[in-house]
Amino acid sequence: MRATFGEHFRLTIWGESHGPALGVVIDGVPAGTPIDEEAIAMHMARRAPGQDPTSTARKEPDRVQIVSGLLDGRATGAPLCGMIANTNTRSGDYAQLRARMRPGHADYAAFVKYGGCNDPRGGGPFSGRLTAPLVFAGSIARALLSAQGITIGAHIASIAGIPDARFDPACVSAETLQGLQSSRFPLLSPGQEAPMRRAVEEARLQGDSVGGVIECAAVGVRPGIGSPFFGSVESVISALAFSVPAVKAIEFGDGPALSGLRGSQANDPMRYEGDRVVCLSNHNGGITGGITNGMPLVFRAAVKPTPSIALEQQTVDVTTRENVTLSIRGRHDPCIVPRAVVVMESVLAIALCDLMMDDAAGRVLGPS
Amino acid sequence: MRATFGEHFRLTIWGESHGPALGVVIDGVPAGTPIDEEAIAMHMARRAPGQDPTSTARKEPDRVQIVSGLLDGRATGAPLCGMIANTNTRSGDYAQLRARMRPGHADYAAFVKYGGCNDPRGGGPFSGRLTAPLVFAGSIARALLSAQGITIGAHIASIAGIPDARFDPACVSAETLQGLQSSRFPLLSPGQEAPMRRAVEEARLQGDSVGGVIECAAVGVRPGIGSPFFGSVESVISALAFSVPAVKAIEFGDGPALSGLRGSQANDPMRYEGDRVVCLSNHNGGITGGITNGMPLVFRAAVKPTPSIALEQQTVDVTTRENVTLSIRGRHDPCIVPRAVVVMESVLAIALCDLMMDDAAGRVLGPS
Amino acid sequence: MRATFGEHFRLTIWGESHGPALGVVIDGVPAGTPIDEEAIAMHMARRAPGQDPTSTARKEPDRVQIVSGLLDGRATGAPLCGMIANTNTRSGDYAQLRARMRPGHADYAAFVKYGGCNDPRGGGPFSGRLTAPLVFAGSIARALLSAQGITIGAHIASIAGIPDARFDPACVSAETLQGLQSSRFPLLSPGQEAPMRRAVEEARLQGDSVGGVIECAAVGVRPGIGSPFFGSVESVISALAFSVPAVKAIEFGDGPALSGLRGSQANDPMRYEGDRVVCLSNHNGGITGGITNGMPLVFRAAVKPTPSIALEQQTVDVTTRENVTLSIRGRHDPCIVPRAVVVMESVLAIALCDLMMDDAAGRVLGPS
Amino acid sequence: MRATFGEHFRLTIWGESHGPALGVVIDGVPAGTPIDEEAIAMHMARRAPGQDPTSTARKEPDRVQIVSGLLDGRATGAPLCGMIANTNTRSGDYAQLRARMRPGHADYAAFVKYGGCNDPRGGGPFSGRLTAPLVFAGSIARALLSAQGITIGAHIASIAGIPDARFDPACVSAETLQGLQSSRFPLLSPGQEAPMRRAVEEARLQGDSVGGVIECAAVGVRPGIGSPFFGSVESVISALAFSVPAVKAIEFGDGPALSGLRGSQANDPMRYEGDRVVCLSNHNGGITGGITNGMPLVFRAAVKPTPSIALEQQTVDVTTRENVTLSIRGRHDPCIVPRAVVVMESVLAIALCDLMMDDAAGRVLGPS
Repeated sequence: MRATFGEHFRLTIWGESHGPALGVVIDGVPAGTPIDEEAIAMHMARRAPGQDPTSTARKEPDRVQIVSGLLDGRATGAPLCGMIANTNTRSGDYAQLRARMRPGHADYAAFVKYGGCNDPRGGGPFSGRLTAPLVFAGSIARALLSAQGITIGAHIASIAGIPDARFDPACVSAETLQGLQSSRFPLLSPGQEAPMRRAVEEARLQGDSVGGVIECAAVGVRPGIGSPFFGSVESVISALAFSVPAVKAIEFGDGPALSGLRGSQANDPMRYEGDRVVCLSNHNGGITGGITNGMPLVFRAAVKPTPSIALEQQTVDVTTRENVTLSIRGRHDPCIVPRAVVVMESVLAIALCDLMMDDAAGRVLGPS
Repeated sequence: MRATFGEHFRLTIWGESHGPALGVVIDGVPAGTPIDEEAIAMHMARRAPGQDPTSTARKEPDRVQIVSGLLDGRATGAPLCGMIANTNTRSGDYAQLRARMRPGHADYAAFVKYGGCNDPRGGGPFSGRLTAPLVFAGSIARALLSAQGITIGAHIASIAGIPDARFDPACVSAETLQGLQSSRFPLLSPGQEAPMRRAVEEARLQGDSVGGVIECAAVGVRPGIGSPFFGSVESVISALAFSVPAVKAIEFGDGPALSGLRGSQANDPMRYEGDRVVCLSNHNGGITGGITNGMPLVFRAAVKPTPSIALEQQTVDVTTRENVTLSIRGRHDPCIVPRAVVVMESVLAIALCDLMMDDAAGRVLGPS
Repeated sequence: MRATFGEHFRLTIWGESHGPALGVVIDGVPAGTPIDEEAIAMHMARRAPGQDPTSTARKEPDRVQIVSGLLDGRATGAPLCGMIANTNTRSGDYAQLRARMRPGHADYAAFVKYGGCNDPRGGGPFSGRLTAPLVFAGSIARALLSAQGITIGAHIASIAGIPDARFDPACVSAETLQGLQSSRFPLLSPGQEAPMRRAVEEARLQGDSVGGVIECAAVGVRPGIGSPFFGSVESVISALAFSVPAVKAIEFGDGPALSGLRGSQANDPMRYEGDRVVCLSNHNGGITGGITNGMPLVFRAAVKPTPSIALEQQTVDVTTRENVTLSIRGRHDPCIVPRAVVVMESVLAIALCDLMMDDAAGRVLGPS
Repeated sequence: MRATFGEHFRLTIWGESHGPALGVVIDGVPAGTPIDEEAIAMHMARRAPGQDPTSTARKEPDRVQIVSGLLDGRATGAPLCGMIANTNTRSGDYAQLRARMRPGHADYAAFVKYGGCNDPRGGGPFSGRLTAPLVFAGSIARALLSAQGITIGAHIASIAGIPDARFDPACVSAETLQGLQSSRFPLLSPGQEAPMRRAVEEARLQGDSVGGVIECAAVGVRPGIGSPFFGSVESVISALAFSVPAVKAIEFGDGPALSGLRGSQANDPMRYEGDRVVCLSNHNGGITGGITNGMPLVFRAAVKPTPSIALEQQTVDVTTRENVTLSIRGRHDPCIVPRAVVVMESVLAIALCDLMMDDAAGRVLGPS
């Protein structure tokens, strides 16, 4: 249930890790929107596995076939359905997992929820593979935002506890954000790449995995997007971010650090710069009262270590109802953080499109 | 827009800080549910201002009048509308704020969004006062959950950076959670109360404010609640939590700390205890793959310091379009954290009701 | 459940016939919209009981108190809650009805659904009284539409089988529609008033009731509003129209008569009139493919006779589980059709606002 | 926009008449539901073109490929996506229609709405072809209902004004409904088939088309399904029925005829039959107050004549902005009514599933 997200730019996601295909129906792409298949392929490649030593060796081309809503390179206004074939599925890897619940995975929760009828192959609909359609939807969304002068970008804020620098939230630039997109391992402090990669490789060699944090930003967002209460920008972004497997925390602006500040420190002073109102700092990450205030929008999402590890773990066998041990074989990412960067950008792009459309709906019949 | 939350246990919130009344329509209270007005009053009092030195001196009785959906002490199945009169509204306090945007508040974002037509008195619909109807709805929700053996509780995890102990997520008990509800300043380590209060008082005397963190838990939740992707438990709780003013971060289980762990540390090992499957640790906060796994559900929400402070701040006057300074007068909380404890409990209760109803809808026509 | 209607101009309705109050929360009124309390009162009076011999003698002033979302005569952009006190509720009239299910009413269906906990006084939430908040919401909606050059009006198309003339769907004018609003018994052929009133009076004297049909139109609606499939104009209007108690059929354009025509008769030929495309006929009632085509929008709704009648009826007593007879006492409308005219106008106005906002949301990020 | 229908049994439809494929994502199929591909194929064949002289000669196998949510013949609980390839698309037929707006079709309304970017081939997303995924979803829904003892069936109530008999609404049987499903031209009075077919053939030979009415019923529905106001059974069914192209009117029970009855005639008397409450008549079509009352559910939908006709029509050319004439070539149904019978059954099945799930969600946390 709840395969659909959004009120205006509305996604309906479908598919499983090891089924014939997976995809997303996007309802609300404005008619006439140019669909740039090259840009889509570029973002899909950023997420695709098998391209970097931190990732699984399993290769998937992840080519998106658009089967509706497209004519002569432009969106028709009808629901746009993008489909991705699953080409590299060795179900054999997962045979024992029908019975043995993988710790840290959805296996046991899903076994109870679906009475044992869920698709256990590769985690079924719980697979990180479902983020592929999300990235496709995000690539449509970011094109719409780009036409409005909005740029989105993200970097690895930490891996295995090793930190990158942080965005300067008051003055991160579109150029910085754009630049990060061309890297498979985007960092603000390139010197941190080597120790991070070492930590991943070390975990991999030990049959283990590591997590990390992704920091994401948007610049060029005008003030006034979002709503008080249930339509807050934070509500919409977080609801979508937490649908991405392995995300366990999200913070906006200074996040939890705000809880240790005084009001006089946390409040961002404002002043006119010509006709524009700007804040002199951006502790609130571009959002006050749930609404954008014109400053760069900044959030961080914490990603737990990949639960699929080769190391032996204690678990249960729901068939025999016995306590057992489990070593997960197969090709798994020792660290999904680099591939998740574009996923978080997609979350932000999709949420912003939906919120901007909401704002428009609320204005159209208003007094001019 | 988006005054409505939930798909089954559905809230529609209305009102402003200084209007005649505020309230909430709850659609989906099962017919026949006993409505315990005393329990409601008890939870409303936990949030009400003027009861503790950390709070504003402004007193509001916050009595809820139920104007629909109730007959002979039981819910009728029709929408239940609870209304709270605003009795103590000195609008004069806020007169200058029509023009001068309060830093850290929604003022400027709302001014742009609503073209200057928003209600600026006390923050209008952005006011923390809107959490009063949320607590009312939460008190209905927690009664429904209690009948299912679920207990919810929370404590102050930190104020001004001064930490309380944390819940032991693998074995927090219903008794602990219940016990916390009777305190206006709920802590696991009572010794932390004095330093926390000192930090609040110090800030108050300096015309400043402090923030904090609230940790919230539910025990007795059965496995299988929630859905993959857009209906994840984390998605639903976070969307609601971020609609509460001043919340800027949320984390489930170990939260961001998970990003620094190895998979072998973060994965919670499972074993049978009799017929029941339990986890030996609970780093995932009772949620795996977006679905409850039967372990205690644990999250923390970070609350920024109250933005209304007496200290002089730099800001803009949108009438004169000049840079100005502002000292906010009136009665404001130097720290809203103690009053927000019951608000976070309410968030959890409401989200769980909605998710449990969703689960039921998904089962009813299934094979037995 | 489902007290909320609409995706953008969103109503949440609450209250019962004999509770303390009833009302509606309207989410999505654009900030700055002037709220004309006189116009509201005028439309409320058109629906109010006790004003015409066809109606119940029970008087209700039906004054709307706006308790949120309003400041200085303008909408603030926050949810607007309108409340109507129930002042004239003689519950005694309905005492026996707890046990004896009124034929043609919701009583038995509701008894089963709500396990006997529903509010039986005056039909509780099933009462036609709930159309009062709908008319209030409609009066807000029609003001928004009026500012866009759209006029809405309706007339009694038949009572007790006695027909009025029909709108000429290809050329009904704003003047005609406006003129109808000033009458308590709006007809295109005034000569039909006397026989209609006689039929109502005859039924009343016999302790019986009659039904009728209402024809409703909107002019000035631009082409392009609505969507294929689930967002069709007919889908949105009909969903709302059937929430009005006693409506049992709805038809657009020529309605069922279209099923007897040839395609060559039913298709409305088009031509340019200057720059504008017009249809030479309007069999499709201004809607083709679920989307407005610029012609007047026309629909008819059939209203069954009021089920509350004094004549003795066979029914069941759910307390004693016996077959019994029932004569309904109290003050009931022998014919609700005249009062329902403004209700159907409100349905059309609300649906159009929602659809126009949807259209705007779909365009905002599109290529210009 | 609004490609999604339902709150619990939720459809998201996608595709166009002449795109590579079309389909539907069904969210909410209970895990473990057996998926009977033969039954699906049977219902798909009832709708498929090219099987009867009343239909277009264009053949489409309309085989559904289920690409997600299915494992080992059972639903997994994840979104179930069914896809149908478009195999027989001669776009050449429609070339001139980019410019020349077909009367009675969505063409002009869509041209305005989508700024000329919509897919004009075969009507794009407005095509009756989109009812194929609806029938697929309906076949899943009716299997779920069948397991609850509910049977759905429909017949041709009229074609070109030539009437069939009507269901006896108080005592239509499951056997009758099931029997109708095996006919390509289902009638209660088989003698009407010949004159109906003659009327269709006559229209076809003249390059014209005819419409008709479909009557649909469900038996075995328990009382208590549906809600007052916006969740009325009539609201949900009508919203879905009007999303089917060419439907222009819907009526429940006696429909408009109720408007000519007295209350004493229209009210269905009730009595106990053993433990069961039954109505002695069923003028209300099994629904009172928007909620099922346990009697057979009956509605009729009027279908306008196919707008695609060979006869010359007056219309506009939006490219040259001139008045022109148009003769639509290609293979079109002279009458879509026989193929639409299973579509209306599907509408009823889908709506009932959604409503029954809603009812379950509303009960689960209630007092037992």
